[in-house]
Amino acid sequence: MTAIDIPEHSLFGLANLPYGVFSTPGAAPRVGVRVGESVVDLAVALGDEVFARPSLNPFMAQGYDRWVRVRRQITELVSGDLPDAAVHPVAEVTMHLPIDVADYVDFYASEHHAANLGRLFRPNAEPLMPNWKHLPVGYHGRSGTVVVSGTDIVRPCGQRKAPEDAAPTFGPCRRLDIEAELGFIVGTGSELGTPVPVADFASRVFGVVLVNDWSARDIQSWEYVPLGPFLGKSFATSISAWVVPLLALAEARVPTPPQDPEPLPYLRESEPWGLDIDLAVSWNGQVVSRPPYREMYWSPAQMLAHLTINGAATRTGDLYASGTVSGPEKHQRGALIELTWGGTQPIRLGAEPRTFLEDGDHITITATAPGPNATRIALGDVSARILPAPQWTAAG
Amino acid sequence: MTAIDIPEHSLFGLANLPYGVFSTPGAAPRVGVRVGESVVDLAVALGDEVFARPSLNPFMAQGYDRWVRVRRQITELVSGDLPDAAVHPVAEVTMHLPIDVADYVDFYASEHHAANLGRLFRPNAEPLMPNWKHLPVGYHGRSGTVVVSGTDIVRPCGQRKAPEDAAPTFGPCRRLDIEAELGFIVGTGSELGTPVPVADFASRVFGVVLVNDWSARDIQSWEYVPLGPFLGKSFATSISAWVVPLLALAEARVPTPPQDPEPLPYLRESEPWGLDIDLAVSWNGQVVSRPPYREMYWSPAQMLAHLTINGAATRTGDLYASGTVSGPEKHQRGALIELTWGGTQPIRLGAEPRTFLEDGDHITITATAPGPNATRIALGDVSARILPAPQWTAAG
Repeated sequence: MTAIDIPEHSLFGLANLPYGVFSTPGAAPRVGVRVGESVVDLAVALGDEVFARPSLNPFMAQGYDRWVRVRRQITELVSGDLPDAAVHPVAEVTMHLPIDVADYVDFYASEHHAANLGRLFRPNAEPLMPNWKHLPVGYHGRSGTVVVSGTDIVRPCGQRKAPEDAAPTFGPCRRLDIEAELGFIVGTGSELGTPVPVADFASRVFGVVLVNDWSARDIQSWEYVPLGPFLGKSFATSISAWVVPLLALAEARVPTPPQDPEPLPYLRESEPWGLDIDLAVSWNGQVVSRPPYREMYWSPAQMLAHLTINGAATRTGDLYASGTVSGPEKHQRGALIELTWGGTQPIRLGAEPRTFLEDGDHITITATAPGPNATRIALGDVSARILPAPQWTAAG
Repeated sequence: MTAIDIPEHSLFGLANLPYGVFSTPGAAPRVGVRVGESVVDLAVALGDEVFARPSLNPFMAQGYDRWVRVRRQITELVSGDLPDAAVHPVAEVTMHLPIDVADYVDFYASEHHAANLGRLFRPNAEPLMPNWKHLPVGYHGRSGTVVVSGTDIVRPCGQRKAPEDAAPTFGPCRRLDIEAELGFIVGTGSELGTPVPVADFASRVFGVVLVNDWSARDIQSWEYVPLGPFLGKSFATSISAWVVPLLALAEARVPTPPQDPEPLPYLRESEPWGLDIDLAVSWNGQVVSRPPYREMYWSPAQMLAHLTINGAATRTGDLYASGTVSGPEKHQRGALIELTWGGTQPIRLGAEPRTFLEDGDHITITATAPGPNATRIALGDVSARILPAPQWTAAG
């Protein structure tokens, strides 16, 4: 038997207990929970086959009461001794995509981000579109290209056209960017025709991941009128391997910033779901931004209520992301296009002035949130390395 | 044993053989093929468990060679006698959604449709956006709300704001519209990082459905800037129950209209995949439009090549639709917003002037294509009835 040692000040203590899908050499991917620097194999520890699956979906589909019960069971379990076969060092396991992604939606819920992009793209107009403060603007992304943290990102190719070019050209993206976001995972779906009220958020949403919504800005700016982003985003979206249960984020709840005008009734929250989560973006090991999630205008409960107000069904495994998290300060912007003001104001990376991503660059997004008794908990980090565009692109 | 009687001039003769998922009372949904007015239970007729499943996906995933072989087997089989248990009258079975939809993408490939909407929404500008003739514009839709023909469509609610309104209001959609489209179903997926060349279209795409991409125009026009359509489309997308194999459409192949400027190399086809398919839209039993698919500017092979040129993976069950099929003539427009010029020119339905859909309306889209020896084959039709918005919307 093994007793799990939780290092003092661990960001993965008993108040966190994130879920993921892991494998060890020769064994199939299965569900585990992270405790300190260990991964507990839940199928072994709890003797429940729902955890012997390569995705969290079957467990998530069991619903809120079950999530609460299992969390309590795990808390008791890891305080005592566990069979040796149930515990693995986190450094020795391989992590996999934790969920089968059903539909993927990306919102645009940071006022600072939306206003910055408005100023960049429409310098002589109002920074925010007229609809922005009335509804959480969002769109559907590609669920088949959501990848787990650690997956290399190949620089995408596509059509690019700068305003001064006569015609588009084909080739590797020249303005490859990040978007630091939070993602919310629907645990229990809702029927076609049945909107999810803001008050039902916590019983529907299982947990939270960090998201890097990779963006090919040159491809996006040429293609996106009038139907929105498509190939500029669909090549890859990275999520963290660890899913922090919403149940672990009780201490992180804060009001959202004041919403003026008052939203329509279906978007009003009596107990708001703002979240006091601090993100950090590291570029080749150097922290270049610290986006504060508490600044987000629309809450994730409002996003889900909006997403379903037309009767759209949701399913176990639906993923919806917040959109880029940007705060009011320059060092709080969650995308390079904002940090470098459209590539016109390079930032210093070590000694080097840099704008967008180069081949070989590493990006890691991390985040922490308040836990009980002045402790902190971590979200799973999301990191990736940029690989060069494939060679065939010369023939494009 | 039973010999299948195929009525003379049947649109579901041996040249067609579309696949679907059906059930009979007390039995689970399974794969069948339509022959004349009969459905052949393929699990029984071929003794293959891959057809005993409630979705075409496992069969489609077996790949092109298998599709060819099974089509040949079925042709031989239905020319002889079949066990009684393998044959059901089409009128006595219940049809289900034929595929598990992976990702859903909607294109915008009709020049006439895109130009009409341009004239309606931006009357003082060029009808087509600068990118339109360089790439097939598209965006991701909601795969979780794709429903099978025959499913009632509940009028969606949402935020609507006319230009003259000071603020948005909440309530049932007032401009509920159709979009008559073709949908293409990916049979065998492609890996992340590997574009699908135009020449691989026929080995990747299993078959074709008719699509009604329901559109709430008032919700859409308020929400869609700058990230594209979202709730104005995501409440429901109807597809036909029968999937016509691409193998049945050899006689329908025609060149696309001339493409000027010449597309970039990755979009060039040596043997184009235009399709000479005639659609018809019936509104409460009256044909109000006959959209010609042969007028579509971009081919479905070009759509798939574009969709994957950034390295995006595809999966068995991916569905991509053409966008509204509209021809150059007024009676060839595939959406009510075009047929009624934004609601300003009502069309006569019986004696009644009408613009957008009312509760209780029925819409049916049908289509036929050339078969061998001057015969014709039908695509599965897609039909639905409009139900009123739910009562709770008064409280919205």
